[in-house]
Amino acid sequence: MTEARPIPVTVLGLGAMGRALATALLDGGHPTTVWNRTPGRDTQLVDAGAKSAATADAAVASASLVVVCLLDHASVRAVVDPLAETLRGRTVVNLTSTTPNEARETAEWAHRHGIAYLDGGIMAVPEMIGQPEATILYSGDETAFTEHRPALDLFGSAEHLGADPGLGALYDFALLAAMYVMFAGVFHGTAMLRPAGVSATEFANRVVPWLTAMLQTVPAQAATVDSGDYSTEVQDLDFTKAALDAIVRASSEAGAELDVIAPIQSLVYRQVMAGHGAEAFQRMVETLAPAPARV
Amino acid sequence: MTEARPIPVTVLGLGAMGRALATALLDGGHPTTVWNRTPGRDTQLVDAGAKSAATADAAVASASLVVVCLLDHASVRAVVDPLAETLRGRTVVNLTSTTPNEARETAEWAHRHGIAYLDGGIMAVPEMIGQPEATILYSGDETAFTEHRPALDLFGSAEHLGADPGLGALYDFALLAAMYVMFAGVFHGTAMLRPAGVSATEFANRVVPWLTAMLQTVPAQAATVDSGDYSTEVQDLDFTKAALDAIVRASSEAGAELDVIAPIQSLVYRQVMAGHGAEAFQRMVETLAPAPARV
Repeated sequence: MTEARPIPVTVLGLGAMGRALATALLDGGHPTTVWNRTPGRDTQLVDAGAKSAATADAAVASASLVVVCLLDHASVRAVVDPLAETLRGRTVVNLTSTTPNEARETAEWAHRHGIAYLDGGIMAVPEMIGQPEATILYSGDETAFTEHRPALDLFGSAEHLGADPGLGALYDFALLAAMYVMFAGVFHGTAMLRPAGVSATEFANRVVPWLTAMLQTVPAQAATVDSGDYSTEVQDLDFTKAALDAIVRASSEAGAELDVIAPIQSLVYRQVMAGHGAEAFQRMVETLAPAPARV
Repeated sequence: MTEARPIPVTVLGLGAMGRALATALLDGGHPTTVWNRTPGRDTQLVDAGAKSAATADAAVASASLVVVCLLDHASVRAVVDPLAETLRGRTVVNLTSTTPNEARETAEWAHRHGIAYLDGGIMAVPEMIGQPEATILYSGDETAFTEHRPALDLFGSAEHLGADPGLGALYDFALLAAMYVMFAGVFHGTAMLRPAGVSATEFANRVVPWLTAMLQTVPAQAATVDSGDYSTEVQDLDFTKAALDAIVRASSEAGAELDVIAPIQSLVYRQVMAGHGAEAFQRMVETLAPAPARV
């Protein structure tokens, strides 16, 4: 059953992200109640039509859908645990950044109390909320996701990844990890060119199109990893080791610290030392996590 | 003076890349002589019209332009040092992967012997040579670059970065470093999702558009680095530290090794511990290489 009309929604937590979520709900025509532990954060939302609740319990009492966006897992549990009886029969969507295991723990708590539970990872900054570029990765109760899809679609592009409530957070963290590592790689390149007087902006002008092009090789690399067949005609680990040796030497000669690049070289060495020098360099992923048993 | 007509060109070194370069020259109508230390690599090129030389000295004797594409710096010097007198007055373009300091060393040798010298870094695989997507970053003798531009343009998009002959290699290595680090970040994300049964391909489908979008933030980040003003309203190091703490915890819980992500966390910690928690996270670059003195 998919809601076709406005439903009462409550937002718990009015940081920058919580306020953006509440604004999107108000813009979408849903009667929206807001609550924040520290008062005074809801002035603009109330002006825009939100109802301000004095307590978290009062805030959720009449809501079909409760959106939780707090600081961390501990603050989520501190706020929602006392509300268990009031939340029974309602849907909780937890958009707080928590780890997959924390999401699974909260899902189990919700299940025990008859609360439908969805966990979501927001792949966006608050300014992007409400635009299709803001992707929100949900996992957990699929019926609740389908039922509340119209409201969830107001936040951005909603996707449901699976019943495991930890899956959304897992994807979220995997994507964020890849992003921070990529930024660190850009910082390393910037640091290599810096002593030669090349600005970060000059490097950015070249590295953005270069990395954008190189990202296009990722699906083929992923196919290699998934196949488990690391024989290659393209780039083996011996070649990659020589390339990284040269990059590390050039980095050091240029006066850049090796904090970011040396660990990558080390990963390649581990695979080469294990006897895989003639295999594809994507085999590095096997050092980071062995493949699950194939059926 | 820019050449308007075919000129005799010699290619020293017929690995996959050397053969691709010679093919591009032949396709462009230049009389092309080829040489390789190990014989037998030139059969197809000779069929396509190349002249095969028995010795490196004979190969360069009638060339205006000598393209060198060997295994490494040591092999370049082993091949070209004995040719110094024959090369006098000609132009050598060294497209072998060498470090910036090695490029500078060869440039100095060339200068002593009256040889015009250009060093280049090829940002492409052999299959891409001849297409505009293959960028070749040159540095060194700008007059030689201008004179031989028509021939060099046959390889791909040619760019001259400056008179310092090490600059092309420096950019080359900085871009390659950023690429390998980015790939390692993708492998880390893949490893996080693997134990949950998510394939590398499923992750690739999400991580490619995500990182492509996130690359768009790099120019603004570079402007922050270049300004030296790390005050921020967007993302400070304290927030980044909390994010990386959560990512590392999630990685560990998911069963992924921390080889790639822990060094990034450590970089953030160093900045926070130095008292910069309230400053922009791009300040990480200062740990990797301090800014040159501002004039």
